[in-house]
Order: sequence, then structure tokens, then C-alpha cells
Amino acid sequence: MTPAELRGLLDLVGSGRMRADEAHARLLAELREQPYEDLGFARVDHHRAIRQGFPEVILGLGKTPDQIAAIAARIVERGHPLLITRADEAAWHLVHAVVPDAEYHADARAITRKGEVVPGKGTIAIASAGTSDIRVAEEAAVTADLMGNHVERLYDVGVAGIHRVLRERGRLEDARVIIVVAGMEGALPSVIAGMVDVPVIAVPTSIGYGASFGGIAALLGMLNSCANGVAVVNIDNGFGAGCIASMINHL
Amino acid sequence: MTPAELRGLLDLVGSGRMRADEAHARLLAELREQPYEDLGFARVDHHRAIRQGFPEVILGLGKTPDQIAAIAARIVERGHPLLITRADEAAWHLVHAVVPDAEYHADARAITRKGEVVPGKGTIAIASAGTSDIRVAEEAAVTADLMGNHVERLYDVGVAGIHRVLRERGRLEDARVIIVVAGMEGALPSVIAGMVDVPVIAVPTSIGYGASFGGIAALLGMLNSCANGVAVVNIDNGFGAGCIASMINHL
Amino acid sequence: MTPAELRGLLDLVGSGRMRADEAHARLLAELREQPYEDLGFARVDHHRAIRQGFPEVILGLGKTPDQIAAIAARIVERGHPLLITRADEAAWHLVHAVVPDAEYHADARAITRKGEVVPGKGTIAIASAGTSDIRVAEEAAVTADLMGNHVERLYDVGVAGIHRVLRERGRLEDARVIIVVAGMEGALPSVIAGMVDVPVIAVPTSIGYGASFGGIAALLGMLNSCANGVAVVNIDNGFGAGCIASMINHL
Amino acid sequence: MTPAELRGLLDLVGSGRMRADEAHARLLAELREQPYEDLGFARVDHHRAIRQGFPEVILGLGKTPDQIAAIAARIVERGHPLLITRADEAAWHLVHAVVPDAEYHADARAITRKGEVVPGKGTIAIASAGTSDIRVAEEAAVTADLMGNHVERLYDVGVAGIHRVLRERGRLEDARVIIVVAGMEGALPSVIAGMVDVPVIAVPTSIGYGASFGGIAALLGMLNSCANGVAVVNIDNGFGAGCIASMINHL
Amino acid sequence: MTPAELRGLLDLVGSGRMRADEAHARLLAELREQPYEDLGFARVDHHRAIRQGFPEVILGLGKTPDQIAAIAARIVERGHPLLITRADEAAWHLVHAVVPDAEYHADARAITRKGEVVPGKGTIAIASAGTSDIRVAEEAAVTADLMGNHVERLYDVGVAGIHRVLRERGRLEDARVIIVVAGMEGALPSVIAGMVDVPVIAVPTSIGYGASFGGIAALLGMLNSCANGVAVVNIDNGFGAGCIASMINHL
Amino acid sequence: MTPAELRGLLDLVGSGRMRADEAHARLLAELREQPYEDLGFARVDHHRAIRQGFPEVILGLGKTPDQIAAIAARIVERGHPLLITRADEAAWHLVHAVVPDAEYHADARAITRKGEVVPGKGTIAIASAGTSDIRVAEEAAVTADLMGNHVERLYDVGVAGIHRVLRERGRLEDARVIIVVAGMEGALPSVIAGMVDVPVIAVPTSIGYGASFGGIAALLGMLNSCANGVAVVNIDNGFGAGCIASMINHL
Amino acid sequence: MTPAELRGLLDLVGSGRMRADEAHARLLAELREQPYEDLGFARVDHHRAIRQGFPEVILGLGKTPDQIAAIAARIVERGHPLLITRADEAAWHLVHAVVPDAEYHADARAITRKGEVVPGKGTIAIASAGTSDIRVAEEAAVTADLMGNHVERLYDVGVAGIHRVLRERGRLEDARVIIVVAGMEGALPSVIAGMVDVPVIAVPTSIGYGASFGGIAALLGMLNSCANGVAVVNIDNGFGAGCIASMINHL
Amino acid sequence: MTPAELRGLLDLVGSGRMRADEAHARLLAELREQPYEDLGFARVDHHRAIRQGFPEVILGLGKTPDQIAAIAARIVERGHPLLITRADEAAWHLVHAVVPDAEYHADARAITRKGEVVPGKGTIAIASAGTSDIRVAEEAAVTADLMGNHVERLYDVGVAGIHRVLRERGRLEDARVIIVVAGMEGALPSVIAGMVDVPVIAVPTSIGYGASFGGIAALLGMLNSCANGVAVVNIDNGFGAGCIASMINHL
Repeated sequence: MTPAELRGLLDLVGSGRMRADEAHARLLAELREQPYEDLGFARVDHHRAIRQGFPEVILGLGKTPDQIAAIAARIVERGHPLLITRADEAAWHLVHAVVPDAEYHADARAITRKGEVVPGKGTIAIASAGTSDIRVAEEAAVTADLMGNHVERLYDVGVAGIHRVLRERGRLEDARVIIVVAGMEGALPSVIAGMVDVPVIAVPTSIGYGASFGGIAALLGMLNSCANGVAVVNIDNGFGAGCIASMINHL
Repeated sequence: MTPAELRGLLDLVGSGRMRADEAHARLLAELREQPYEDLGFARVDHHRAIRQGFPEVILGLGKTPDQIAAIAARIVERGHPLLITRADEAAWHLVHAVVPDAEYHADARAITRKGEVVPGKGTIAIASAGTSDIRVAEEAAVTADLMGNHVERLYDVGVAGIHRVLRERGRLEDARVIIVVAGMEGALPSVIAGMVDVPVIAVPTSIGYGASFGGIAALLGMLNSCANGVAVVNIDNGFGAGCIASMINHL
Repeated sequence: MTPAELRGLLDLVGSGRMRADEAHARLLAELREQPYEDLGFARVDHHRAIRQGFPEVILGLGKTPDQIAAIAARIVERGHPLLITRADEAAWHLVHAVVPDAEYHADARAITRKGEVVPGKGTIAIASAGTSDIRVAEEAAVTADLMGNHVERLYDVGVAGIHRVLRERGRLEDARVIIVVAGMEGALPSVIAGMVDVPVIAVPTSIGYGASFGGIAALLGMLNSCANGVAVVNIDNGFGAGCIASMINHL
Repeated sequence: MTPAELRGLLDLVGSGRMRADEAHARLLAELREQPYEDLGFARVDHHRAIRQGFPEVILGLGKTPDQIAAIAARIVERGHPLLITRADEAAWHLVHAVVPDAEYHADARAITRKGEVVPGKGTIAIASAGTSDIRVAEEAAVTADLMGNHVERLYDVGVAGIHRVLRERGRLEDARVIIVVAGMEGALPSVIAGMVDVPVIAVPTSIGYGASFGGIAALLGMLNSCANGVAVVNIDNGFGAGCIASMINHL
Repeated sequence: MTPAELRGLLDLVGSGRMRADEAHARLLAELREQPYEDLGFARVDHHRAIRQGFPEVILGLGKTPDQIAAIAARIVERGHPLLITRADEAAWHLVHAVVPDAEYHADARAITRKGEVVPGKGTIAIASAGTSDIRVAEEAAVTADLMGNHVERLYDVGVAGIHRVLRERGRLEDARVIIVVAGMEGALPSVIAGMVDVPVIAVPTSIGYGASFGGIAALLGMLNSCANGVAVVNIDNGFGAGCIASMINHL
Repeated sequence: MTPAELRGLLDLVGSGRMRADEAHARLLAELREQPYEDLGFARVDHHRAIRQGFPEVILGLGKTPDQIAAIAARIVERGHPLLITRADEAAWHLVHAVVPDAEYHADARAITRKGEVVPGKGTIAIASAGTSDIRVAEEAAVTADLMGNHVERLYDVGVAGIHRVLRERGRLEDARVIIVVAGMEGALPSVIAGMVDVPVIAVPTSIGYGASFGGIAALLGMLNSCANGVAVVNIDNGFGAGCIASMINHL
Repeated sequence: MTPAELRGLLDLVGSGRMRADEAHARLLAELREQPYEDLGFARVDHHRAIRQGFPEVILGLGKTPDQIAAIAARIVERGHPLLITRADEAAWHLVHAVVPDAEYHADARAITRKGEVVPGKGTIAIASAGTSDIRVAEEAAVTADLMGNHVERLYDVGVAGIHRVLRERGRLEDARVIIVVAGMEGALPSVIAGMVDVPVIAVPTSIGYGASFGGIAALLGMLNSCANGVAVVNIDNGFGAGCIASMINHL
Repeated sequence: MTPAELRGLLDLVGSGRMRADEAHARLLAELREQPYEDLGFARVDHHRAIRQGFPEVILGLGKTPDQIAAIAARIVERGHPLLITRADEAAWHLVHAVVPDAEYHADARAITRKGEVVPGKGTIAIASAGTSDIRVAEEAAVTADLMGNHVERLYDVGVAGIHRVLRERGRLEDARVIIVVAGMEGALPSVIAGMVDVPVIAVPTSIGYGASFGGIAALLGMLNSCANGVAVVNIDNGFGAGCIASMINHL
């Protein structure tokens, strides 16, 4: 309810066209209306599509397949596009049963169902340092694609063979935002950010062993990047990178 | 030199309008030209203004005042805008001597000299959780301002009094990018990102004590944000946040 | 034995109504009496019910099902209420055999058997940030309930949709103590503690991935809370939170 | 404005005793009223005394003496009690100039000015493990005292001479809440919590060397306490302990 | 070969009772003799029994059952007592086949075969804080027993019920060395060391969850013990504690 | 294309012996030629054999068996020697099918196929501290051997029986480079480096338990070596050690 | 009061030779007697000399010079030997004023005053790896000496020149306990413990830089020692090592 | 004494040309000869020049200027070249007094005095990522130079402007060993190692702030390098890098 609507309501009361108790009830209802649906174990935030341009996304991690399927059903009922991340086979089977036109992206461990979204303005390039980082890169790609963006993939362009990324300068310069996914020492975002003038979203992955400490080495490398224009999301958080890249690409 | 220019050059040679050794020299020069100036202790990357829209920025930390002043002089000679971060009083005195129209921002510990830049498209809002975070927020503000952006400051709106940030919803929604600066538990970016649909650049600060571990607690809080649209820069890296926010605001 | 009882005993001896060796034996017995039962692998602290208002609670973690069942049997024999935390199915089967009227709470991984307890004075509200945090929240709820408290559950009210928790202000204000359970960035306790004037017991959970480091991010966030009235228990320690909240609610 | 007051307002409008635009303005004002005072660098939350029973407390750490004195002046103007923690001599001199009846507690590094507060119901006992922990214990004591509580101090009762704390059993049992302050291995809260049936707020201190890691050893010890009824605040956070203990003592 | 033996040899040569080349060979043999047996994958240090009073002990962790059995066979062949730690069922089956009179201690995960050893002078007391710590305590007990020491076990005497350990003061004072095994906050060594005047060997265990970090909390607690006479071995290193306690008990 | 070749090309054009568009095409081809083969999920860097003396090595970790086999096939097609590290049985079966003359080294978890390489100049000695470190030592040995080096193995010569390594002084002094593999406290590289005047490449292993923290203790020990001539590779990185040792042995 | 004394007392009462109230008072006095002296900021544990063979030792760290001098005065008044560790010049001046015959050991940062103690049975050898570790070694030496032990110093015998420690084998074998002090990689205790059959107390020092992390590398190295008979004290804790070595040497 | 010399000695005795006791003394002397000079606080390892090709180097850190000067005097007396690292002005003054022809390298914080050394075979290239890393690079350069190597410096060639290092490909390819010094994310070694086929010694520096954690980020980046041929030394350990690079360059 905007200030103008409030004024309208009061005018109706002031002019006798609405009773005070009627207006009272409506105002209270407005204030009390719950912009989410309470399932007991979850409060589905249907309002988020209005507030943030995309409905609530389900993080599968730590939820039971039943919980995931129940929330998915509610989101699809409203006609919203559906995105479930960190979804295993068990979740997929239950969701598929209640949302038959959903798709499963095994690489990205994501379940999607397309919906109407505002298209992004340019291209989001997604670069991965190694073959093993592709899972996380695909989570970012699926997310960005579902949110209405054109996505370009540049995989296995890590810095140990620097000519591989240098040769992709053209495709990188054509992007409006770049997502860079890398494990181990996480050096790729610094190199790419030094080559372009668009924002780079860096995603450390847990790929590596020993002193990679499950992605800490890559995370620290990215946070300490000496290049300008780099910001970082959580280890393996392909979704988060796809999401903020999409927001930027919609500006 | 683009493929078309290369073709043109070869046509000149092929048609006899240019001698082969002349073309040879020009091609080698093109390939060998050094897009930086070597001072021995530093290679000033003058090419960066073309490549990234803003010239090299001097990180004062770990450099001697003499080194800082020498690099600053070279940048100003080319007519570029000047930004020196982490600059103490000693550096300021030497820089002031060689760049008389430079300015010192004591809060932000930054030295600037305005130059011509492409203006950003919208507003960058900078929110700080507490009074003690203002130094880092000001580094971001000085950076974003120098790079041609309109900046809105919203200071001391931390989550312990949630009504303070809720009341600023309007100003936050009017921004095209939001920088959120917070120490201690670093919870403010999550709350703000949940209220808007624009990208949030989160800056953890080293403000706190005990288990804040010099900003680690805030950093981890921000990396683990449950809200969409948050990416993180290094602890106390106001400059980095201002820089990527400016890139986004120029898209 | 209080000083007064000691005086009475000595008066009996002094007046010849009790022999010195009789008194001697009784005093030694008093001093030597073991307020626990030694099973070899465990010393069951039956005295704890008197000392702390609730009998010994069995932490299932690291104990064999046989050990758990044996200790449970001893506690139930004395007529005490029974609480076993971190109990898996194997433990439940053995315990069920020896304590047929016990109950298994699968969500909370807890086994209980009700007993007489002093009722708490008000309500303990238990808020969880996400659906995945419910297991830990339920451990707190089962504990608080068994210890005689009225419990209110408010699940999935995390800060990324701040209106969800703001709408529960009434129920939060009605509580005498609030337990707040959150993983990932652990920001919810700060927001809730800023809204009320009762103590908040914060429980970090291991829910999250990457830089959540098994709950460290949430733990640090809570320890660094900028709000007043927050104290923290171990990661995933729903029991500990329920227990101290019950102590507070019995004051 | 309560629902009843809202109804009253609408009745006035409905009955013609108030004009719609007049009511409109009043409602908007109510919604927009700022329950804090904006000093630019700080938003003083005067509303907090109503919301949480005690006005905003100033954490001196990271603020300039000027900022501290300016905020202190605003709080005292409203007649509120004043508490500044982590205040050094420089801050004290400026504050003393604007709040002449303030007091400086050198041990606790705190500045206070008494005000009217609701008295707590019982006693808060504050135990410290060693002599070096007294600074933190005094911050808790000053806080609890200013908030209206009766405080009992039991200093230097660490576990290496267990008889020292056993002999204080009586005073510990007489308390309604106990704050336990300890550095090094932080074992005292476990021992005390095992002796009583009231909540124990544990405060790790940074006292120690080597593998105490600035209080981490004590913090971890307290979080892992095998005793029931222990919750923990940040390292060296005497204020936080005093504050939540006071809240509990006011229930 | 001692200096005296060397002199004797040279006297024999000098007096013509031994030929120089004979003596040459013997001296070289002495110098070259390998005081270990090389199995390719292991060099069995048979000399250790002479040098350190007990033969080489096999750490099962990281070795294949075949390797373990082969080394065990070599040790038993020399008539040495046998101790294999961290031995699983698979290792036990192979070892049992080659060393039929070996014993398996399932609790301690140890394989032993008694041999002749010098008896220790007094008693080694082994205290464990909780039931879950018994595995590690048993590894210490099996080790100390095999090395010829009398062992007293005091299990489940953790500090949350301080009367349990206070009542064992007598048995603790009767020991010549005390091993204290504890997980979680690891506070028991401090309490026990404060009660006695003999050395305490503290063994942190990995028992716990959350912020126990696999035994780090207990380890740090023990390293920071405020009591005198405590030294610490690795997390879960029952063997190491048993071994040094035996050395002390043989002095 | 060298400057001389470029000159030659231009001379041809200048003298009319080559058409400008022909030269144009050739120059562009030269610039665009991709010195890697793009499989979509991997860019096989065939150029590396020229650039670094050995073709791309496949790190099996994080790749699917299908991906590994596909890359292996491409490398073998070019006649290059093949090395796959961290290869499990599943990968071996698929690779064996496409490269029938490959070998599997179970200890080292490596797949190899010999090829022509330049022989190293001297011997690489590989010492391991314990039997459990042999897997990592074998990865180094297989790598060094495949790259054309003569390898000497000295296993189980850890510092707890210092005579074992002292007796191998001769073989150590005969090596041109020494790889030292050790877990637990990682002390062996310091001792060996103090005995010789050739470079020592230290490899920490994840062997150990408790405070070895998966190899961190050994890693830190080696980084802090007080001996001269020690450099360190990642935990368990036998391949990396073998590779740099081979480079040194080829100088 | 022993059981026998208690019996005697009761016999006196039973036979009328002592009045019941007299006995009552005496028993209560016995129970209440405080075996420490309360200075407000410290409880001086005079009883410790009886309980542990040496009076309370003052850790200077974190105490004011005034507090140190006051406690020292109380200890000396009782005729006890005095040991103050981590004492700076300021503390020394105040202590010297009240205890004129005290001595200051600048290297060890310790203040002592000799007193009567039971002599230890053998020699305590103290080995240091480097020159920089001597401060910590001297703290151990001063402690052991004051507690009645004969001390042998072997400084700068680190493992990078292994012959230095091998040549001291004789002096090491002659000791009853060995303290080994080392920073950096902390390898010396493993080497020494492998050479002897007496207990080794390892003291990590904070000497080093970079990845020594203030002594963590040395600490971890020592905890993970592959040699038998090593136990560890806190980083830089020379006192603790001297103390437990003295206890062992008095057995 | 070689086996042949031993035989000769015995022949002398066997043939009566030397008395047995004479030979006895000589053999014992040989065994007992101390190849170091004991100053009490240090054992100067003069033998190291023979064993390792360069005499003992003095690490100034943690030693007093007096100790440094005393050791320096002993080394120079033998005519050895002198290298003192981590030497401050105070040490320089004392050393200068006793070694008048020594030099002070302020950037590198090193004191040197040239001596005769075997020249290295090729060039050692030393690349630094930033201006602030030059101090550490200079320590490596001074070390390598003193040990007889030709050194090439390439400073400020960090990856954020990748063309800077690409343009130095020629000088890098001409080196026999490359030392790469970098702080912050430490990505430069990976890029350089991917360009050349010689060993790269990576030196992380403590340059950076926030999540660089004093060089940990750079250290981890280098340990996890995805390029072949990289080994790492301690943070800021320019000396160690220079030393091992020199050893390699002397092969």
C-alpha cells in the first residue's frame, strides 16, 4: 500500500463511502498479510520474485527430498521458474514426480524449470581453469541461463599454459560480466581481470589436494588478487556467481 | 594493430608503396612497444587506462614515500587521474611536493588528483555497519567518486538496530550498486541484499576484537551470505569495492 | 550433612546417646558415600538431579549402543527422566528393549522418557534460520520440553528475507528466553537480539559448505554479535542451548 | 501506534472530528519517525532504552575520542545512564570535559555515569581464574553494577588449586547467575557449572602465551565444556557477559 | 665396541696374536654392521631394544596388513615382545597367522605378544574424562602393561562432576606417574596435576564435535594448563603416553 | 615465426614472389594457430612437450574416467609418453582399453606409457621416512623414471633411528638431486640437507594422525627447515617433486 | 585430619574429656581453614609447597609490578624459595626493593631467591637447537636449578649439522631427563629421543619467521614426533619443562 | 679416515712400526675431533664449507648484535666468505667494527664479505611481482651473488598486467634457474613456470593485508601451483631461495 493508496482509503472514510471499522480491518490486513507461505519446515518467500526479480531458489543441501519437492511444488504452482541447486538423484526423482516438465542437469547437480524472465543485456562469459572445475562452472551457467542471460563457456584455460587464455581475449572482451572458476592456486581471475574492463566474479573451487585445504588456497588467492575489478563468492558457489552476474547483466 | 590494418600494411608493401624493410621495422616496433614505463623498482602500466578505463592505482602499502612519489609523478605527467591508497602522512608530503594540486583524504588514507573520466550511469550507495568502519567506507567512496560515480553514504546502520537500515530502504533501492562495509559479524550485507535487486559488494573490515580475528569473522559471514547477489572483496579493501562497483556502474 | 546436623550428631555422642564408634562410622560413611554409580566404563552421576535439577544426560556420540543402554537402564531405575542425545537407530533399538516406554525423536536424534520436573516459568522461543537447521533446533526443543518448559517454534526465518522475522516480533517478545539456531553466516541472533530485551542463546550449526567450515563461520558471527544479550554454545549443540535456556526459565 | 490507537484515529476521521488529510499526515509521520539521532558518523539509538531496558552502550574501540565524546553528550542529554567500554585515557579526558560527573574505571577501561535503572532480582557472581583476568572481570562487574545488579567478586580461583574454588561453593550457590572469566586453558567454567544449577556465562580472555593464541584455547575450552548450563561470549568481552547476565537477573 | 674393546683389539695386533688384516676386517665389520634388517619397504630396528629398552613398535596406520605381518614376524623371530598399534581386524588376521600366540585388544586396537621386560618401579594411573575416551586410555594401558608396569584405571572422572575425581585422590597420590586422557575441553589434566606432585602426561582425544575440531580444543587446553607438571602428547596418542610414562616409571 | 622469418616473408611479398593476401593469410594463421586441442571439457596442451621437455601430464583427481581416457588417447596419438597421476582402478580400466601398452603402478596410483625422452645426467635419490610414505615416494619415482632419470630408492630411514640415514650417506652423496618424502614431523629433509651439498626437494605426506592435520605438521616442518638447500612441494605431491627433480637433473 | 585423628577426637568427646561444642568448633575450623592467603587480586597458595613439593610460582605475564611484588613478599615471608617468570625490568626493581636477596636472570627473564629444597637424583640435560632458543632454555635451567637439580647445558646442537648432537651422545646418555628446546621445524627432540632411553620433554619456541607461525611449526613437529618418549609443553614454556623434569628427577 | 687409511694404520701397528697405544690415541682423536668451534652460545660449523660448498650463514633474527659479531669474527678469521641475513643497523655497526671490509645491503638487510667461491654455470633470474617484494628479492640476489652466480633482476612483473612478464620471456628462457618472489595471491610462479623448462623456486612474501595473512595466501597459492617445476621456500625466505638456486646452478 503506497502513501497515495492510503490517502485514497482515508478519503473514502472521510467522505462516508467506507465505514471506519471496514477501513480498520483492511489496514490491519494489509499490515498483517504474510508475503510468504508457511509450510512448517519452510517459509516460501513468493514475494521475492517481485522484490528481487527472481523467485526463491532452493538450496538442496541439508534438506530432505520430501522437503525439496514440497517447496518446489509451491513455487511451480505460482507459475514461477524453478531452480534447485545441490540436488542429488533422490531429490530429482521426487521433484520430477511433482514437476514433470522439470529438467535435471547432472553436471551442475541442478534441477530447473524455465519460466518467464527479463532477458539480460549482454553476454556472461564463464571461464574455468581446469576440467575438474566444470561442475561448479556449470552450476553458474545453468543459473545464469535460467535467469535470462546469454552464456559463453571457456573451459580449461588455466594459467599453467597462459597462451590458452590469451587466445580467448576476444571472447572475454565481448562479455559484459565474466565468471572465473578455479581451484588449486586460484590465479586465473587475476590474469583475466588484468585483460578486460568488466567486472569479474571469482569462484574458488574445492578442487585440489594437500595444501589446497578444500578450496581455501584458491579463495585466499582470489581475495588477494592484485588485479582490479574482482569480487569473490563462496567456495564452489556457482549459483551465487551466476546470480550476481545476472543482476549485473540486467542493469 | 587489427587484422585489417595488417592487411593494409601488406597491401602497401605488395603494391610497392612501402618498402619491405620499412614494413618490417614497423611491425617489429608494434610487437616490441612497451606499454609500461620501467623505473627499475616499478613498471608503470600507462596502458591500463586504455585497457581498463582507469590508469594504474598506487597501493602505498610496502612502498617507500620516494617510490610512491616517483610513480605518482610519472602518472600525472601523462595527464592521468591519480589515486594512491594506504598513503600515510610521510607519503603525502613527498607526493604533495611533486603534485601540488593533489588532495589528501585523511579518513580514507588516500591521495587523489582528479582527471577526466567517463561518468557512471547511476548512484553507488555505500553503507557502513558502524562508526569504526567509516575509514574503509571512505576509501571506497573516494575511489568511486574519482572514477566518475555519484556516491550516497549511509553510515552506522548495523543490524543490532534493524530499524536503522529498514528506514533507508528508499535510498538503497535508488542505487545501481551497493557497497556494504561491516566488521564484527559482518551480517549487514545479507540483510541489505535481501531487500534489493541490485548487486551488493561486501567489504569485511578488521574492526572488532577477540574472535573477530582481524576481520576473518566478517569475511566468513559475508562469503556465507544466505542472500542472493553478494560478492566479497578482501578485508579492509575499500578501494577494490569502489573499483568493481564503478565498473558495474559504467556498464 | 549440614553444620547443624553435625552439631546434632556430636550432641548425641556428648550426651552418651550415641557411641563414639557409631558416630565415627556414620561420619566416615557420609564422607565416603559415592554420589555416583560406577559401571567400570562410566560413573553415573545420580547426584546430579539434586545438584543441578536434572539427572545426568547421556551424550550418545562415541559410546557404543551397549554402553548407552546400560547407563540408560541405571537412570530409569532411579525413576529419573531420561535424555539421550546424538542417538542413532542402533542405540535406539537397544535402549527401547530396556526402556520400553522411551520415545525416539528422529529429527532431533534424541531418546527421551518423561519424568517429573519443576515447570519453567515462561516460554522458550526457538527460531531457526533455515529448514536445514531444524535438526539442531529440534534437539533444543526436545531438551527444553523434557526439562519442563513451554516451547514455541519459529522455523525458517533467516535474514535474507528480513520481513519473515520482523513479522514474528510479537511471539519473540512474549518469550522469556530465545534460542536462535543458524548456520551459514549466523546473522539471525544479532537481528533478533536487537529486537527484544531477553537473553538470546545462539547455536551455530554445521549447515553450509565451502567457507562455512563446518559451522565456524556461523560460530564466529555469533561470538562477534554487535547486539547485546547474546551468548553462544558449541556448533550443533542444541542440547546445550535447551539446557541453559531451561535453567534461565526456571529462575 | 497500537491497533487500538489506529482504530481511534479512524473513528475520529469517520465521525468527521478529524480531516482525512490531517490523519494522513499523522499516520505518515508515525511511520517515518526516526527513533535515532543521526550525527553523520553515528546514529544514536535513543530508542534502545525502551526496546531493551538500557540505552545504547559506546564501544570505544576504533572510534576517535571526539566521536566518543559527541555520542556520550547526546546520551547524557536525554538523561540516560552512560557506559563507554574500551576507553583509553584520551577518550576519558574528552568525555570528562563534556560529562563532568562521569567516572573512569581504569582497571575495566570503562567510563560510566549512573542513571536510573530497574534493579536486578538477585546476585551476579563474577569469578576469575587468575589475577591477570581481573581487567576483563572488572568490565563485566562495572557493566552489571551500572545496570542495577548486586555483584559478588571471586578472583584468582583457577583450577590448578581446586580447593580455592571448592571453598567458595557457598557464595557461588547464592548467585542467580555466574560469570566466569578465564584465560589459558579456560577450564574454570566447566568446574563451576558442575557445582551449581544456575546459568554460567563464560568469558575467555586473551591472557596466556604460545598456544593460547590470544584466547582461542580458552574460547574452545569453554565452547566444548562437558558441563551443563554454560554459554560463551567473545574473547575479553566482559561487557557482553555483564549485559546478558543482567538481562537474566532481571527476568 | 667401547674404547676399551678397541684397545684390546689393538693390543692383540701389537703383540702379534692377531693379524692386521684380520683386525682390519673386524673393525670394518663393526663399523658397517647394520643394526636394522632391511625388508625393502621397512628397516626393522632390532637395535632399538638395546638402545631404548624396548624393541621397535609397529604403527599400523598407513601400512598394509601384509607389511605389518612381515615386520611382526621379524620382531618375534628375535624373541622380542611385540606391540602393534592402530591395528584393524584385517591386520589382526594376518598377524595371528604368523604369530599364533599374539593377542588382540579390540578396545585399544592393539596387537601384543608378551616378552621379557624390566619391571617398572611403581604404579601408572590412567584417568579418562569420559566413557568415549576409553579407547585411547586402553591403548596407553596396553602399552604400559606390556612394557612391564603396574597399571591402575580410573575411567569417567571428568570435571563436570568434580567430586568423582576428588574421591580418587588416594589412588592418584599412590601413582608414580599419571596419564590423563580427555577430549572436549581437556580440563582434567589441570585439575589432577594441581592435586598431586608427580608428573602428568596429558593425552587429548578426538572425542567431541563442532568446535572440538577433532581434538584441537583438548590439545590447546592441555598445552595451556595453568597447573605445574603437565606435558602433552599427540591427539589420541595413547601409545606415546604409555611409552613415556613407562620410561619415567623405570627411572 | 622469428623476426628473420618475418623479414623473409615480407621480402617475398616486396619482390612480388608472394601475393599480399597469401602472406596475410599465412601471418594470421601463424597468430591464430592453436597450440592445444580443444575437447570441450579439456584443452590438451600438445605444445608443452616443446616448451617444457615433457608433454602434458594428466592429474586424475576430479576427472571422470571417460575424460581421463579421452585425453590419454589424444596424447598417445601424437606419440608422446603418457603419465596419469591419482588414477584409480576405474580410470585404469578405461585407459587400458584405449592405450593397450600402458602400465599401472598400483603403489603410486599412476598410469604410464614410456616414450622417448632426453636422459637425465645423474641419479635422483628418493628417501622416505617411513613405510607409509612409500606411496608418495613411488609417485615421485615413477615420474622421475618416465622422464628419463636414474632413480635410487632409500625407504624407511626416518630420524627416530638416526643411524639408518647416516649409514646411507654414501648413496646420498652420489645423487645429483635428492627427494625426501616424510609425514608426521617431517624432520628428515633437514637432516639429509645438512649432510650433502645438492638440492633437496622435500615432500610432506598426509601420513600421521591427530596434530599432523593431514600433512600440515610435516609441511610446516619442511618450510621452516634450518638446513640450506631445501625447497618444498605440496602435501603428497610426489609427481611435482619428481618433475622438478628431473628438470634439475637435466640441467 | 586423618580418619584416625577423627576417631581420637570423637573418643575424647565420647569419654567426656572434650565438650561437644568444642569438638564442633574444631571440626568446622578444620573444614573451613583456608590453605591460601587472599590478597583481593590473588589467592597465594602457600599450601602448594606441601602438596607439590614447591611453593606457588609467579607468572609475571599480565600482572602489574605492584601485584608481583606483593605476592613475592608473601611467599618470602613464609621462608619459601621464590620464582617469578616472565619478569621485566620494572617488576625486578619493585621485587628487589622488597626481597633484597633476590637475583635477576636477564636471559631467562626470571627472578629467583634460593630456598631449601629436596635435591633431585640425577642430571637434567638441556639441549637447544639454536642460539636464539637460549632464552627459553635458560628459563628451564633456572627453574630446574632452583628446584634442586643438577643441570647440564648443550646449546646450538640443531639438526642441520647432525654431527654436533651426535658428538654429545655421552652427555645425553648420562642424563636422567632431557629437555630439548627448539624453534623453526622443531626436529631436534625426535633425533635425541631416538638416541637415548630416558624421557624427553620438548619445548617449542617462537623463534623463526613466516610459516613458523610463532612456534606452531615447532609445536606440531614435536607433537608428531616419530620417536618414543617425547612429551611436549607450551610454546616458549621453559618453566613448565623445568618443572616437570624436576618432578621426574625427584622420583 | 678412509678404510685405506685405517688399513695403513693397522699395518704400521702389525709390523711394529707404531705402538698400539699410539694408534689407539690417534683413532680416538679422529673419532672425537670436533668439526665446529664452541662459543658457548653457538657452535660455529666451520666444517660446513667443505661439506656444503659454503660456510655457515648467520641468521641475524633472534641473536643479539654481540652474538652476531662474535660469530662473524670467527668465520672471517678462517678466511671464509661472510653472509649475515636479517641484520639490522645495530648488528651492522658491531660487525663493521670487527670486519671492516664487510658491506651492508640495506634493502636486503644483509651483511656480506666476499670470499673465494666456485662460480655457478649459468644465470639465476630473479623476478618479483611487485615493488614491495623487492626486499625479499634482494636478499635472494645478494645471496646468489655472494655464492658465485650471475644474477638477472626482473622486478614488478606481476600478473595483473600479464604483458609485463610475457615481454620478458627471452630473459627468463636464458636463465638456468628462476627465483620468483610474490606476495598477495602469489600467482606469478605458476605463470612463469608454464613458460619455461627450468626449475622455479617460489618465494612467498608477507606483502599484502587482510586475507593475505602475512603471506599465507601467497604460500598456499605457490604450493598449489598447477604448473610443473615449482618448489617453494618459507615466507620471506629470500636467502633460502638464493641458496638452493645456487646449488642447482653449480650442478
